Order: sequence, then C-alpha cells, then structure tokens
Amino acid sequence: MYNLKDLIKRIGELNTSDMYLNDFLLTWEKSDDEIAATFAVADALRLLREQNISSKIFDSGLGISLFRDNSTRTRFSFASACNLLGLEVQDLDEGKSQIAHGETVRETANMISFMADVIGIRDDMYIGKGNKYMREVSAAVQEGYKDGTLEQRPTLVNLQCDIDHPTQAMADMDHIIHTFGGVENLKGKKIAMSWAYSPSYGKPLSVPQGIIGLMSRFGMDVVLAHPEGYEVMPEVEEVARKNAGKTGGSFTRTNSMKEAFEGADIVYPKSWAPFEAMQRRTNLYGEGDMDGIQKLEKELLAHNAQHKDWACTEELMKTTNAGKALYMHCLPADINGVSCDEGEVEASVFDRYREPLYKEAGYKPYIIAAMIFLSKMQNPAEVLENIEKRGQKRVFKL
Amino acid sequence: MYNLKDLIKRIGELNTSDMYLNDFLLTWEKSDDEIAATFAVADALRLLREQNISSKIFDSGLGISLFRDNSTRTRFSFASACNLLGLEVQDLDEGKSQIAHGETVRETANMISFMADVIGIRDDMYIGKGNKYMREVSAAVQEGYKDGTLEQRPTLVNLQCDIDHPTQAMADMDHIIHTFGGVENLKGKKIAMSWAYSPSYGKPLSVPQGIIGLMSRFGMDVVLAHPEGYEVMPEVEEVARKNAGKTGGSFTRTNSMKEAFEGADIVYPKSWAPFEAMQRRTNLYGEGDMDGIQKLEKELLAHNAQHKDWACTEELMKTTNAGKALYMHCLPADINGVSCDEGEVEASVFDRYREPLYKEAGYKPYIIAAMIFLSKMQNPAEVLENIEKRGQKRVFKL
Amino acid sequence: MYNLKDLIKRIGELNTSDMYLNDFLLTWEKSDDEIAATFAVADALRLLREQNISSKIFDSGLGISLFRDNSTRTRFSFASACNLLGLEVQDLDEGKSQIAHGETVRETANMISFMADVIGIRDDMYIGKGNKYMREVSAAVQEGYKDGTLEQRPTLVNLQCDIDHPTQAMADMDHIIHTFGGVENLKGKKIAMSWAYSPSYGKPLSVPQGIIGLMSRFGMDVVLAHPEGYEVMPEVEEVARKNAGKTGGSFTRTNSMKEAFEGADIVYPKSWAPFEAMQRRTNLYGEGDMDGIQKLEKELLAHNAQHKDWACTEELMKTTNAGKALYMHCLPADINGVSCDEGEVEASVFDRYREPLYKEAGYKPYIIAAMIFLSKMQNPAEVLENIEKRGQKRVFKL
Repeated sequence: MYNLKDLIKRIGELNTSDMYLNDFLLTWEKSDDEIAATFAVADALRLLREQNISSKIFDSGLGISLFRDNSTRTRFSFASACNLLGLEVQDLDEGKSQIAHGETVRETANMISFMADVIGIRDDMYIGKGNKYMREVSAAVQEGYKDGTLEQRPTLVNLQCDIDHPTQAMADMDHIIHTFGGVENLKGKKIAMSWAYSPSYGKPLSVPQGIIGLMSRFGMDVVLAHPEGYEVMPEVEEVARKNAGKTGGSFTRTNSMKEAFEGADIVYPKSWAPFEAMQRRTNLYGEGDMDGIQKLEKELLAHNAQHKDWACTEELMKTTNAGKALYMHCLPADINGVSCDEGEVEASVFDRYREPLYKEAGYKPYIIAAMIFLSKMQNPAEVLENIEKRGQKRVFKL
Repeated sequence: MYNLKDLIKRIGELNTSDMYLNDFLLTWEKSDDEIAATFAVADALRLLREQNISSKIFDSGLGISLFRDNSTRTRFSFASACNLLGLEVQDLDEGKSQIAHGETVRETANMISFMADVIGIRDDMYIGKGNKYMREVSAAVQEGYKDGTLEQRPTLVNLQCDIDHPTQAMADMDHIIHTFGGVENLKGKKIAMSWAYSPSYGKPLSVPQGIIGLMSRFGMDVVLAHPEGYEVMPEVEEVARKNAGKTGGSFTRTNSMKEAFEGADIVYPKSWAPFEAMQRRTNLYGEGDMDGIQKLEKELLAHNAQHKDWACTEELMKTTNAGKALYMHCLPADINGVSCDEGEVEASVFDRYREPLYKEAGYKPYIIAAMIFLSKMQNPAEVLENIEKRGQKRVFKL
Repeated sequence: MYNLKDLIKRIGELNTSDMYLNDFLLTWEKSDDEIAATFAVADALRLLREQNISSKIFDSGLGISLFRDNSTRTRFSFASACNLLGLEVQDLDEGKSQIAHGETVRETANMISFMADVIGIRDDMYIGKGNKYMREVSAAVQEGYKDGTLEQRPTLVNLQCDIDHPTQAMADMDHIIHTFGGVENLKGKKIAMSWAYSPSYGKPLSVPQGIIGLMSRFGMDVVLAHPEGYEVMPEVEEVARKNAGKTGGSFTRTNSMKEAFEGADIVYPKSWAPFEAMQRRTNLYGEGDMDGIQKLEKELLAHNAQHKDWACTEELMKTTNAGKALYMHCLPADINGVSCDEGEVEASVFDRYREPLYKEAGYKPYIIAAMIFLSKMQNPAEVLENIEKRGQKRVFKL
C-alpha cells in the first residue's frame, strides 16, 4: 500500500478539484475522496523525504502563522510543513502588531497576504469565535484575490479552533491507518474517545470533537465517553452520528469509561472542559467579568475533581481487545506521578506507548503539508510524479 | 507602459550607479533617475511574479529587521520583499538582545551583519533620533565592510524614521502613477496632504513629511493642510518647496482642510502630532520625566479635540475634482463609527475606497524589494532580463 | 595555507568519521583531527562564500535554536550558519511553548525534531544544568532516530553551557590561527586568560573554561589568572593540564594579572563569577530562595569591587610581548568610561583592537556552519569539492 507509485496512482483516481484554492477548516466539510487524498499525499510526501527527495513546490512565498494560544507541536508542524514545500514561515504576533477587531480583520488579512500562500490559524479559546474568525479571514482574502488586491489566494489551514482540530484528527487517523495496515481493516473496530481527569481545567473541546467527527467515517464503532455534564457540541455529535450511519459503523455515547474501554481496539483518553462551561466562560470574557471567570474556574476544578477515577489505568487497558488497544493522545498528556499527581493516564501505560505516541505526532507535519499541497496543486498526482522525476536532493549527497 | 520589456528598457536608460551598495534613507537624497528606477524595478518584479517567475537573486543571506515600534504592514512588506529575493528575515528583537546605547551601536551593527545583505529599520518615535540612528548603523557597517570585518556591505532600508517614511511614500506614489496611467499625467494635478482628527495622539510625522517630500517632484500642486500648531519639520517643507520649483509644480500650506480639498485630484487626510510637541516629548523621554510626558499627552489630546471638524467627510469629498479625488491613507485609518467614534474619515468614504486603499498597500513589498534589488545589482536591467530568461517558476507548474 | 584546494586536501586527510551524525558539546570530547577539520571546513566555507559560491547542502530542513539566555552574537551566528547551509531557523521560545521539566524534555525534543537537522542550545545560567540538559535532548533525539520516530538524527550544537562555550572558543582559536599565520606558529606562545573586573556580576564561566580547555591543545603556554576565590571548575583545569602535557605546552594558574600579562602574546581579560558562588546560586534557585539570591548577589558585587585593579590597562599591555599582545574578548566588553565607569578594559586599548575584535567574532558563523557540516556530511572533503564544482552563485551575477 505504501509505495510511491501506488500512492500517486491512488491520488490520481480521487477527485480533489474542490480542494484547489480552498481552505481546510473542518474535516466534515471534506468529501471522502478529499480525506483519502490528504492521507495519500501526506504519505507520498513522507516517502519522498525518506528517499531524500525534496518536495519543494514553492521557490518563494510566505506561510503565515497566527497562534492565539500557546503551542509547540502544531507550531513546529506548521513550520516544518511550510519549509518542506518551500514557504518561509512568518509569525503574525498580535502583540507586536496590535491587530484590532471588527473592521480590521478584513484589512489585516489582506495586509499580511500580499505574498502569502497559506495562513495557519490557531484560535481555540472561545466557543463560537475561533472557527468564525477563520472564516472571516478566508472571506477577506478570497475577496482580496477576486478583486486583484492579492495576486494569489492564500489558503487557510485550521490549526485548531473551537469546533475542530483537523490537523490533529487527520494525523491521528493516519497513525491508525498505518497501525492497522490500511483503512480497509478498520471496519468494525471499536474506538473509545473518552474524557479523563486532569488537574488543569478548560482544555479545548476541539480534540474530542475532531476525533468523533472524523473517526466516524471509516466504519468503526465510535464511543464517546464522559461524565455527565461534560457534553461536547451537539452539532458535532450529529456529524458523527450521520457519518456512522453512512459507513455502517456506529456512534454512541456513554457516561462510563469502563463501558467505552470494554473490548476497544483504540482508546483516546483525554481531558476537556464541558461545552456549556466554555460558553459561559466565553460570555464572561466578553463582559470582562474577571470575578465571574475566577468563580467559574474554581467551580470547574471542583467539578473535575469529582471524576478522578476517569483515568487510563492498567486495569482498564486490560479490558480492551486482547488487552492491547492502541493508546492515543494528542500530547502532552497528564501522566500520574510524572506531570501531575493524578491525571489522565498511568505512567506505565503511557511509557509502553511512548514510541507509537511520538510517531502519531510525527504525521502532523505531513498532514499539514498535504493540506497545503492539495490547495495549491491542481494536479497533485502529476506533480508528485514530476517531483520524483526531478529527483532534487533534500540533503546534499555525493 | 507596464510590459516587462519596456520597463527593462527604461531601467537600462536610467543612471542607478549610486544606488549600488548604498542605502535608501530619504527620498530626497535620491536623484530623479533613481526614484524612477525604483518604481520601474518594483513594477518589473511584480510583473515577473504575476507571470509566476521567481526573482530570487540570493541563494542565501539574511535580511535583518529591527522594529522599534509596532508594525504589521511594513513588517510583512519587508519580510515579503526579502523572501521574494531569496533572503531569510531575521528579527533583531532588542528585548532579547539587550542592545545598549552609544558605543555599541557600532558593535551590534557589525555583530549581526556577518551574513546580512540588508537591514531594515523602523525607528520613528523620537524626533532627531530615528534617522540619526540609521546613519550610525550605516556608517558602522560601511566601515566594517571597508576594513574586511564584513564580507559584504549590508545596505539599509529606512522602514520609517522621524523624518521620512520612504517605503510608504514610494508605494503611495507608485499607486498614484498606476491610477493616473503614468507619471506623465500628473503635471498640474492637485494633491492635498491634510491633517485629520484622531482620538489617539502622537502619530509620527514621517508620513506627511514623506508625502510632501516626494510628491512635490512630479509637477503636481502639493497642498499641506493642518490646523495651526500642527506644523511639520521646516526642513522638509523646504525640500518640498525646492522640489516643486524644479518641476513646475507648487507647494503651498494652508490652515483650511476645505481649501486643500477644493478641486483636489488626490487627498491624503491623516492625523499627526505637532513637530514641536514631538520635540518636547523626545526631550521629556530623554530626561525620564514621566509626569511631564503624561501632562503633555493630556495637553495634546485636548488640543486635538479642538479640531474634530478636520475629518474627510462625504461633503468634503464632493468639493474635490468632479467629486472623485483619489482618497489615500497609509492604514490603519481612524474611521468614524468603526474604529473610533470620530476620526479621520467617514465610513462611507473609506468603504468606497477600500479596494484602491488595499492595492495602495500592495505596492510596498515591491517597492522595498526594488530598493534592495537596486542596492545589490549593478546592472539591474540586464539582471531582470536574465531573470526572465531563466524562467524559474515561483510555484511549481506542470 | 588558505586556498580552497589545500584546505580540501587537508580535510580529506583528517579522520572525521565520528563527527558524522554526532553532536558538538565540548571541545575536549573531540579529537585533534576533528578540531583541525572544524577549522579547515570553517575556512573553506568562508572562502567559498567570498568567491560568491553557495554552500547550501540542504534544500529544506529546520535549524532549531533554543536560547535560555539573552544573546545577539551567537543567535545571529547560528542563524547565519543555518542559512548558509540551507536550513531555516525556527526559534523554540519556551515562553510561547510552555516546555515543562522532567519527562517532557524527551517528549519536546522529539516533537520539535520531525524535520529538524540541527538543534542549537544556549543554557549557561546554572552550574550542573546546561550541559546536562543538552545531553538529555541529545539522548532523546538519538532514541527517536533509532526507533524511527525521527527520519533524521538532529545533531546538537552547544551554543554555550555551564561548562564550555565551544563555538566561542573555536572562533577565538580560528582568529588566533589566522593572526599568527598558522597553527604551526603557536608553539611556545603565551596566552593569558585573565579575570577582569566588571560592575555586573554572575557572568558565566563557560568562556574562560572554554578557552583553557581548547587553547591548551596547541603547544602554547596557557596561563589562567584570577583573584583568589574566582576559581573555575576543577575538572576543566584538569582538562587543560592534560592537554598541555600532551602537546609540550603548559597550563599554569596565578593570582596575579600582572604575572599573566608579562610577555604574553595573547591576552583575554574577562570577568566571570566564582564557580563556587555559581553553585550556591544554582542551589538557591533550586530552593526558590529569592532572599538568599539577593544576598548572594550583594556579596558577590562587594567581592568583585575589591578587585577593580584587575583591568586591562595600557600599562599592563606594555608588559606583554613587545607591548603588542593580541587582545581578545568575546564581546560585549565592559569598557572603562564607555559602557561603565570602571570595567574590564581601558577604552584606548579596546579601540586599538576594535577591528581584530570584530573579525574574531566573524569566525563564529563559519565555525558553527562547520560543526553542522561535519555532523551531516560523511565525506566533507568530497562534498566541498563538489560544491565548488557546482559553482552555484550565492548572489546573482551576470
């Protein structure tokens, strides 16, 4: 499955025409062909790099990153992806730039984009804001491109919003596909996306939402588990439900971690904040009610603390399929006795899966590169073929 | 006028020899040929990029940016220009670097320049300081180059100082030339550089000064309008006066915005701080007199508030030539009811000119690239010809 | 000695096989061949650049820099070196990244390294920490490479730790070699690495340690001078002693600056903090004892102030060999009457040596580039030969 010729052939058979000059904001806005093409291009770019072949498709051009939240993994993944394709990363540091609100989103989007080929945005803090902001930027540059202000259409990559975390979910999925030897082996597999306890509060919902929104497309039995009160956005559950219906899989919800893990082939235990609380927090920030925010924080921490038993223990892992479910996490994890006293996962479980966890993360640069590649190359298969033929070395070799 | 062959021919006829290995600090230090060549090279670089031809002239090398004031537009323009030509931008963040004063300007300038081809500096906060600082840096690297410390002469681009904002004024002018179909159509046109009210205070003088210092070179009637007390640097007025004298245009000053707009072909309404107040502020900072600064700020805001009627209204716009003067601004503007209650311009005026305003800004990356290009290439016309012949694609195309 | 053909021939005769895919952490971990090869490659890369030949060996790839202390010189040297070879610098700003301690060094090291070819780290603040941290990072990426998490082995360059400052010492040494016309002319030369007074406190020990650890390898008489109580790490003195023994030179210690300067061919007067005090400070930080730190600081400043006579004066310079010893410093220096009232060096001495001092600094980018080059190219001589043959221009030339 993973030789370059087959991958290129595969890509050529998929319809990716709508990806051209388009953004990647939510996985469920993408067709099955488009999702499949993204995995295939990511794998192809990796194979090329492993063969020391450069896949630069840009000779110059900027990749702009705008992080409204701290980030290591995604920041470096975006930088790596841009660099792999030949774009130079330029950070839009809002502190240094004094970006204002309202009218100026449109203005700023154009002002930074005169030579931008791609814009990557992380804006995951406030419910109802992040994805909306990305669409504002997208509409602005689309209009700028249409009226000739911009010579090229900068395409957007969602590096995590309030709704989805597509580069994470896609990297996770590519990891699953590789681990199970192909997407065709996933039918009937059980994946548990489970809430887990963390001493910190307010972690974004975009990971669990991204996971159920994407993993439900491959015929798997997707179980979302969380304590009562930790619901995710209902719209995304609806997406998962519909996806599952179409592919012969299932999407179910439970308030028992135990039930979710029972016989699971894949487990993804991770903390998140209740959707409803995040909405309240967003409103409190909107009103500048700092007392309210502090009160909410205390309340949430107390609430969390009632569910310390939601941890990925060795005991729970034993109940998974043959006791060997693939343990996944977007990292960094809250590891018992390591990064916190009590957290999402027991240290021995985490340690056993360290290598696959790191590999899981390693798909992200390629997934982002594939998203950019497909938004810029109208004939991805032919271009990849030509890149291989060109045979430009990434690192000088005699 | 704007095909590549003609532009290259034009450039070949202009004398740009003094630009080679030289800085771009003030437009009025540049000959007419040099100004014309900068526009022509900027246009040529744009045409090449529009044809997907890479104009990389550097295979490696650094473009160093030093911003002593917040910036989005100019920061990204400089980064874009460097990237277009093949230089990697490296920010000199003085916070992280602890650059000291006095002796060490010379030292730091050399220390960062071992592989620097260009240094872009914004230093616009203090009267009598910014431009002077740039010249110190320039002298330091010139000496370093002469004595062999530096293998190449890093050239400087003034990204805004206390006196001039050449990349802004040149981009604005290129916009005017394109809008009016050529520099030959500008004779006798009236341009109003007018003060306008803003609720913020202390905006640099470099934009109005840059505009009157440059626009007075093309046979236009340049009118500088401002309330009493908002004078700009007398030296720059003198430059404008002399320029106008030489080109059959005129430079006049008025305390009436109405008079300035009357029959104007181009209007540039923008707030700035009075020169004399900026001098006082510079001295107060020098003395560390924070109380004095706060007092001055209050005084200036109160002063400003007396001139809220200095706004670019629809009514005023109607009095311009055929009611259709080209509205210009360096952005961001203070828009009534949008970014402030009362400000420089009525929202409907701004909205009508949004597209040209964004395009105006779009000239800046190319202007900066042209400045770098001309300081690095001894035979710019031949090099551009060769770049076209080389035909290296910017974005991979089958 | 310094033509390209000879340098390449020389490099071909040296055994550099252990440098391949390896780090550069301490000069005394490197064989004489490896040290010699680093100088030769640095010189060769400089010659190539002076001939406008690009020495890019990477078509894409990241060079990651992690500065846990302010830096201008080394930051720009690292950026220049990466850029020269074709790597894009990506800063790991720990503030923006929230890198945690313990377990996560391993994790972070892998997470940032998926497309990293080199990692440069400055971590010089705490005794017993910096070098250790680098080795943790190195072990982490080595393991990641071995188990396939990382497709390439990112190699480390020590940009200053608590023990050594190899890029500084190597650049300094290359400067000495060039000044004296070859390493063969250094036998019997006297070099004085001397403490000097500075009004600031707590300067790292890595420079004096780096100097005695490296300079003792070339048959010179290395004298380390400092007031009582300003001892450096005993392990490094031991290194210097052993080195000197092997090469027919000597390593001695004195508490008299005068004695050290007497007849010296090279002097390196520079402030540093006492090793023992730095250990106490490290422990106080570990215990979070801020009062203790403040007390220690006062004590150290008072201690320093007793040694204001340790300054590089004209008078002292006269006592050096023919009164013309080469004055060296890693910069910035504390210059009497310039950057402080009383400091390390008299202004007239510093001024006389400004040009060589700046040139001294200019070796650093090439030394770093050579370290990267040798860790990435298995056949450095052949690669350099091919780079020359390839003849790719760094700056476009007709």
